[in-house]
Amino acid sequence: MYVGKDVKRVDAFDKVTGRAKFAEDLMPKDCYTAKILHSTIGHGRVVSFDLEEAKKVPGVIKIVTCFDVPKHCFPTAGHPWSTEKAHQDIADRRLLNEHVRYFGDDIAAVIALDEVSAKQALKKIKVEYEEYEVKTDVFDAMKDVSHPIHDENPDNILKHTTNIRGNFEEAIKEEGLIKVEGWYETPMIQHCHLENPDVYAYMEAGKIVCVASTQIPHIVRRCIGQALGIGWGKVRVIKPYIGGGFGNKQDTLYEPLCSYLTTQVAGHPVKLLPSREETFVSTRTRHAMKVYIASYVRKNGDYVARELRIFSNNGAYASHGHSIASKALNCFHQLYPCENVKAEAYSIYTNLPTGGAMRGYGIPQAMFVNESHHDEVAKALGMDPLELKLRNVMPKDYYDPFSHNQNYFDSFRACLEKGAKEMDYYKKKEKYQNQTGNYRRGVGCAVYWYNTGVYPISLESSSCRMIVNEDGSVQVQLPETEIGQGADTAFSQMAADAIGMKFEDIHIVSNQDTDVAPFGFGAYASRQTYMASFSITKTAKSLKKKILHRAYLQTGITEDNLDIVESNIVRVPDGKILLSMEDLATEAMYTLKDPNLHITAEETHTIRSNAYSFGASFAEVEVDINLGKVKVLKLINVHDVGRLINPALAEAQAHGGMSMAVGFALSEEMKYNDKGKILNNNLLDYKLGTVADTPEFEVYFIENPEPTSPFNTKSLGEPPTCSPAPAIRNAIYQATGVPVRKAPMTPHVLFPLFKEAGLIDNDL
Amino acid sequence: MYVGKDVKRVDAFDKVTGRAKFAEDLMPKDCYTAKILHSTIGHGRVVSFDLEEAKKVPGVIKIVTCFDVPKHCFPTAGHPWSTEKAHQDIADRRLLNEHVRYFGDDIAAVIALDEVSAKQALKKIKVEYEEYEVKTDVFDAMKDVSHPIHDENPDNILKHTTNIRGNFEEAIKEEGLIKVEGWYETPMIQHCHLENPDVYAYMEAGKIVCVASTQIPHIVRRCIGQALGIGWGKVRVIKPYIGGGFGNKQDTLYEPLCSYLTTQVAGHPVKLLPSREETFVSTRTRHAMKVYIASYVRKNGDYVARELRIFSNNGAYASHGHSIASKALNCFHQLYPCENVKAEAYSIYTNLPTGGAMRGYGIPQAMFVNESHHDEVAKALGMDPLELKLRNVMPKDYYDPFSHNQNYFDSFRACLEKGAKEMDYYKKKEKYQNQTGNYRRGVGCAVYWYNTGVYPISLESSSCRMIVNEDGSVQVQLPETEIGQGADTAFSQMAADAIGMKFEDIHIVSNQDTDVAPFGFGAYASRQTYMASFSITKTAKSLKKKILHRAYLQTGITEDNLDIVESNIVRVPDGKILLSMEDLATEAMYTLKDPNLHITAEETHTIRSNAYSFGASFAEVEVDINLGKVKVLKLINVHDVGRLINPALAEAQAHGGMSMAVGFALSEEMKYNDKGKILNNNLLDYKLGTVADTPEFEVYFIENPEPTSPFNTKSLGEPPTCSPAPAIRNAIYQATGVPVRKAPMTPHVLFPLFKEAGLIDNDL
Repeated sequence: MYVGKDVKRVDAFDKVTGRAKFAEDLMPKDCYTAKILHSTIGHGRVVSFDLEEAKKVPGVIKIVTCFDVPKHCFPTAGHPWSTEKAHQDIADRRLLNEHVRYFGDDIAAVIALDEVSAKQALKKIKVEYEEYEVKTDVFDAMKDVSHPIHDENPDNILKHTTNIRGNFEEAIKEEGLIKVEGWYETPMIQHCHLENPDVYAYMEAGKIVCVASTQIPHIVRRCIGQALGIGWGKVRVIKPYIGGGFGNKQDTLYEPLCSYLTTQVAGHPVKLLPSREETFVSTRTRHAMKVYIASYVRKNGDYVARELRIFSNNGAYASHGHSIASKALNCFHQLYPCENVKAEAYSIYTNLPTGGAMRGYGIPQAMFVNESHHDEVAKALGMDPLELKLRNVMPKDYYDPFSHNQNYFDSFRACLEKGAKEMDYYKKKEKYQNQTGNYRRGVGCAVYWYNTGVYPISLESSSCRMIVNEDGSVQVQLPETEIGQGADTAFSQMAADAIGMKFEDIHIVSNQDTDVAPFGFGAYASRQTYMASFSITKTAKSLKKKILHRAYLQTGITEDNLDIVESNIVRVPDGKILLSMEDLATEAMYTLKDPNLHITAEETHTIRSNAYSFGASFAEVEVDINLGKVKVLKLINVHDVGRLINPALAEAQAHGGMSMAVGFALSEEMKYNDKGKILNNNLLDYKLGTVADTPEFEVYFIENPEPTSPFNTKSLGEPPTCSPAPAIRNAIYQATGVPVRKAPMTPHVLFPLFKEAGLIDNDL
Repeated sequence: MYVGKDVKRVDAFDKVTGRAKFAEDLMPKDCYTAKILHSTIGHGRVVSFDLEEAKKVPGVIKIVTCFDVPKHCFPTAGHPWSTEKAHQDIADRRLLNEHVRYFGDDIAAVIALDEVSAKQALKKIKVEYEEYEVKTDVFDAMKDVSHPIHDENPDNILKHTTNIRGNFEEAIKEEGLIKVEGWYETPMIQHCHLENPDVYAYMEAGKIVCVASTQIPHIVRRCIGQALGIGWGKVRVIKPYIGGGFGNKQDTLYEPLCSYLTTQVAGHPVKLLPSREETFVSTRTRHAMKVYIASYVRKNGDYVARELRIFSNNGAYASHGHSIASKALNCFHQLYPCENVKAEAYSIYTNLPTGGAMRGYGIPQAMFVNESHHDEVAKALGMDPLELKLRNVMPKDYYDPFSHNQNYFDSFRACLEKGAKEMDYYKKKEKYQNQTGNYRRGVGCAVYWYNTGVYPISLESSSCRMIVNEDGSVQVQLPETEIGQGADTAFSQMAADAIGMKFEDIHIVSNQDTDVAPFGFGAYASRQTYMASFSITKTAKSLKKKILHRAYLQTGITEDNLDIVESNIVRVPDGKILLSMEDLATEAMYTLKDPNLHITAEETHTIRSNAYSFGASFAEVEVDINLGKVKVLKLINVHDVGRLINPALAEAQAHGGMSMAVGFALSEEMKYNDKGKILNNNLLDYKLGTVADTPEFEVYFIENPEPTSPFNTKSLGEPPTCSPAPAIRNAIYQATGVPVRKAPMTPHVLFPLFKEAGLIDNDL
């Protein structure tokens, strides 16, 4: 059995040796280069272009502008499509946009023989704009709107939803309640995946073929079809290895534009390699949120009523629409169940880069707010925050009637207790009381709530195909994608166990080609291991039935007494190996006696369940008061993500998520001026942590077996990044007594707060 | 319905615009180049290499020699593997050969950064040989053998088989029989496909990936596995579009060597692009044959007894072994059934380039002999050759107990009568009697016998997979390969009809990738349309069942009253369109109500039948007696190849075959010296016909529906090239009275014969 073991990544060798091929490696030698002309105003309308000089640049093949492209809009979100109009993603952008909605919007594209020519031509295009007011702040965006960002939303509100439980107004009348409230802010940040979202496209066999660095090949195929207004089967998307995605590539990015461009040059290959600067501004970001939260608490720590108001800055286009704010909204009543809740969320269009999916999908923001606020409540009550958490956090057997999720094992308590023990939380907390001096230490903790996949909001299904080779080895094809996280290895482990093969006899087909890959939706919502576990198991069962029937034909032993163990056909009662999978397959494929059979199986499984994935972070920090600098000394994550498929890979994935969370907490933020122009659109000015900024990480797993999935596994991809930021924030709170309410907690934020709190000499 | 219609080739646009990608187009930018060192002796042994100077050439990465490669031999023939040892192809070559068996044998390979470096290094390798006697003639090869070409065959006889029927010795005692006999010779020729057999290989995901211009991707996968001694599932072969094969690429050529070379450079891509010269000498050729034939005939034209002795020059390696001589042997007793037959065939190793499969697989040689001889018999009897043919050729209802083939429709008579009418045979024959002068015209005819695929000698099976897209269109995956002949179009037509789709809604997956393609054997034995018709029909049935069940779920109408017509679900009794395939597929793939389904189907069909494919050629020629030059004025082929899938493509395929036959008849021959060195290894010195040499072709089809296959189709790929050469020869015979017994019938052959016959003034 391979599930649960630290087998080596199936792509390890290829990735460390450079054998692994990424989109740019695959681009044909004669590929044309496309470069995009981005708007240099934050809001307005393109009136006209002067292309004369640009067209004269040697090497320029074609220039297309926003006046040339199809006039309909298309959606980009990496969600399964819905046949119901109400559940379809918002279609609010064109391939190139006449109505310019942010500084950097796509208004024209040059196709040239090479990048230099394309760039020279870009410089020579003259654009005349009509300029409108620029809205960057969510509150500002909703008032005095003279030019809506999208005509369909006159007040710039993309969507507003509420979540009302019990009777908030009545409940807060209770006497003796303590009210704790505050406004919190989280930043717009960027995914900073190593590989930009490279793409190239060409036409072949009557189809547009688009090779893209994407997490969601089948969804991208659909969106290209929608963008170009052609049958979705006329598009073929190929996903090679990709250098990280973190949700940015869970959106359809430049695949439709690149696909359109190849149609403009008779199907010749066209590549579109966004620069890092373009990736920052013109792909997607994590939504900045401004959130008001208030809790009404009894002295004993009971939450009586709670209020939440989320204002999510969606930027210029819908992308995932309201889903992210909605997820942040709807975890609220579950994390600390409370009878009386008044909560609402706004997603608001602004003239900023578009917010989209990013690891955690609204939960890192929600946890920063909730868990920061929680510690303030504890302080107001004079209680230890951990004690207050344990009193109020979702209890064992909690059941959510919407998702049918259940907290089967009292996961929060298990994670919190494990984290407290490993951090030596109480002892350290005691030790760090009443510190003075410039360097002060503190410990803090935070929990997170997450779930697995998108059921029941959207469809969850997965198909799988298995193909037996002559040597008995098996190819496994899945629509779920390896995006750097190790998914292929986990899939291979599950497939080996489900069929009964040696691990090395499983060949995962890593790269999805939508023409031949089984249908499915790809990498998002931390869904893949969970979803694929169903389709792998179902397909393996189907394959195994065929194999054992074949074995019966070859051995005469009834299928009921046969099994596959380590790539051999075994007679169960006495364990004797009757023949190898190689013997069986070669005979099946070449027999002249019986009907000959190429043994394959393909099944679709529709998943009708979801699974809570919980955990906690504990942080220990040292704050340099005078510099407003925070050093994380130790960061511990404890996860209940069900049974681990590969502990070593799970730990590595947690490390990655924690590292991103440290950046979110302490340094990362996209800055912009009043025109909405991004000022730090590169890895020099944008403060992405390096290894030097990375503290010591510890990860622990509580392996409560998830009852809903075949291998008792549930989501792990996004969870690690959800709770470290508030744990760090709460550690600063303990160290300094100052409640920071804005991330990232840079010296620019901390210094004035410390000064205000009297921690810094007024002369400084 | 699309079967039977002249739909446009699915790859037409891509091929005329250059969009279609061939192996060389796909080679990675950083590919290393490999070049092969070929022996400069015809027979012997490599004693040693001096690589010192070669290694110093800048850019050289590695040199491997025959002393480095694995010591076991592997087979190369494009046959389905057999699990029975006796039916396995002969394994008689290594990746590089220490025992040099022909002038040009592969003895070492240089891997370099570029071609120039590789070639420079080749020149600097010094080789010491031990030389043996060189045998080029089949008779010489069998006697006085001091150094067998293969140790296992001390007399150089690869194989000898006989075909004895009745009692030949007794039968020839009958009084009054006329004996007609003669020796015939056919040349060694080359396929001259436009694209050389380009290949590149690299390692990825634990596999060797080999992209090759081949007709037989799955077989090449197996042979690479055998050559390298690794599991066949550890090899992945990808076949892009290919520029012709004609049987040469029905052999495993340099795919194993190229695959081995990438393992010697840590899996870095290595390309091996054989030059035209190498392709001539070091791939495969059509076997030269020397054949003795004798017929014992009654005055009325009855064949009483016949004798045949085939000596097939196999060249240095087995390749397809004895199969080709064997096919030539075994058609003999069927074409003109005769009770008393004494026939035998030898395949003989010589120190010449290896004979392999070439369009017709022994039948063009056999027909040249049989049909030339037949006209001599007619002359001896004073009968018209066509009359003698009609009297003796395989009659209606003839049944072959071995293959179970049957002549259901009196095909030969139909073809001959049609050809005679279209040629105006009798009138022209009359007109061309008793000519004098330098320019003389004649008409001649010949028939051919062919069958379809390799059953029951070998396994015949095919798998197919169909995948429904969201827009209702369908991908079709087959192991059968498009090699330029239009197979993909025929497959698409059959699939459209079998499912009930519009033609444009069928997307054939043209390029086989053995990791995901259904299993099967590729292009050879004119099998593909026939074999695929079974697997397409079976898979379509399975797919349709799933679709109609889905339609029942969506419409409530029982499957029994539903059908798929032109990509719509139709209620049969009233013909009403209930929903489109697009509606159905989108709902099936995205429904939240029912179990969601990605509709696909995959089936293997084992074919237990074969089908005769018959036809005739009629030629009209003008002979320039003094120059010994023949001009073909008109060439007519008439085929009964069953129901035509695409008449326009069928005609085009016939034209191609006829054109190759004209070359075989009149100009093509590989010349060599006594060392076995090929003297005309290029398209300048080798007389391949050009468009200027191509006469007017006419093609007619007798569409007798073949009863064994779903679309009533049978083989067409090779047949057109089988009978034109003897028809031309017989037209020359009529024009001049001179029985030519050697092809190609060049002036070098004809001039002395004409002189000997007194047609040319002795002074010339």
